[in-house]
Amino acid sequence: MEPGLSKKRSYVVPEPALRRMPCYLAYLKIAEHGGNKYISSTQIAGDMGVDATQVTKDLSYTGITGKTRVGYEVEPLIDALEEFLGFRTVDEAFLFGAGSLGKALLHDHGLRQYGLTIVKAFDIDPAVVGREIESVSIHHIDDFKLMREEKVEIGILTVPVRSAQQVANLMIEGGIKAIWNFTPVRIKMPENIVVQNTSLYAHLAVMFNRLHSPI
Amino acid sequence: MEPGLSKKRSYVVPEPALRRMPCYLAYLKIAEHGGNKYISSTQIAGDMGVDATQVTKDLSYTGITGKTRVGYEVEPLIDALEEFLGFRTVDEAFLFGAGSLGKALLHDHGLRQYGLTIVKAFDIDPAVVGREIESVSIHHIDDFKLMREEKVEIGILTVPVRSAQQVANLMIEGGIKAIWNFTPVRIKMPENIVVQNTSLYAHLAVMFNRLHSPI
Repeated sequence: MEPGLSKKRSYVVPEPALRRMPCYLAYLKIAEHGGNKYISSTQIAGDMGVDATQVTKDLSYTGITGKTRVGYEVEPLIDALEEFLGFRTVDEAFLFGAGSLGKALLHDHGLRQYGLTIVKAFDIDPAVVGREIESVSIHHIDDFKLMREEKVEIGILTVPVRSAQQVANLMIEGGIKAIWNFTPVRIKMPENIVVQNTSLYAHLAVMFNRLHSPI
Repeated sequence: MEPGLSKKRSYVVPEPALRRMPCYLAYLKIAEHGGNKYISSTQIAGDMGVDATQVTKDLSYTGITGKTRVGYEVEPLIDALEEFLGFRTVDEAFLFGAGSLGKALLHDHGLRQYGLTIVKAFDIDPAVVGREIESVSIHHIDDFKLMREEKVEIGILTVPVRSAQQVANLMIEGGIKAIWNFTPVRIKMPENIVVQNTSLYAHLAVMFNRLHSPI
């Protein structure tokens, strides 16, 4: 890694910028497929409905800057974005809760493509413990402590609402450093633990409201 | 529906408030399970790490207000929240893209619990067209137009990045009014179409960054 890039990454990039980056990446892949070798921030901004200054700033976090007149070289920018976003390094994760949503995530190979692979799942339900889904074995949650030596740092939380906080506590006791929380529970964690909340049902609520409530 | 509630719903509730509501709901269900009949906004605020004034304001959208000293009655508030969020009425949806993520969503029965049921799926891949997953039949996208009379208004977009805009256009031509967009593509739609973006991989990017970048 270049020292410049390393220095950039040592700053925390604002979350809205980080969330926009996969959108730039998708956009650039389409542009590349369409035969574009270069693209300007103005064009990206226009097509994506974002401000051009914002595009320049967001993309600068990757360490890549556009050239006057020609703009960004598409292919290296795609590489830099994928690298920056962590999509090219595979991180291992444990899944906590092999219920409906948990099982669904085990079926999503897309995660692997974006740098995350679920290596083991945990549950308490005798109907699933001992089984395998998509080659991932499901263990009893009590066995999680024994897996500490595997040094997996990411835990995906898909347990029922009522168990969310308790299982989250177990996760960090067992060495998990980042929790991808799919429950609508606001779990309480020490400050050094990364918590990423993704409540599909909250998004669903927004969509229902927008669809059914006339302005 | 009470006229008061109807009037409330005719205003567009701010998105951050809507997104917090399923969190209140989860919190209240845990409180109810713990035997609480009443709960104050101060207690909700303290437990959830939100401002008490915000709690009162957010919950007021449901048409329910707390009483001085006793606070909110838990059970009716749960009912009102579920009703308000649209989780008690089942909306039908079509799924566009029965690839990895699409299949995963077909496996998630949780959606049904929150008021969304996928009734048909569409794809172009001969390997999946004609098949059934979790009792949902997968049709060729060309047949979508024929399904217009079913009056399904919600479409879930889980196609590859390159086809996202094109399929979204097809969706609205076929009568879809709300698109739940799981692709990282910023699709362009007329203003009257509801677009809810849920990019799992954008959340993944944020989590990777927070985990791997020292401050």
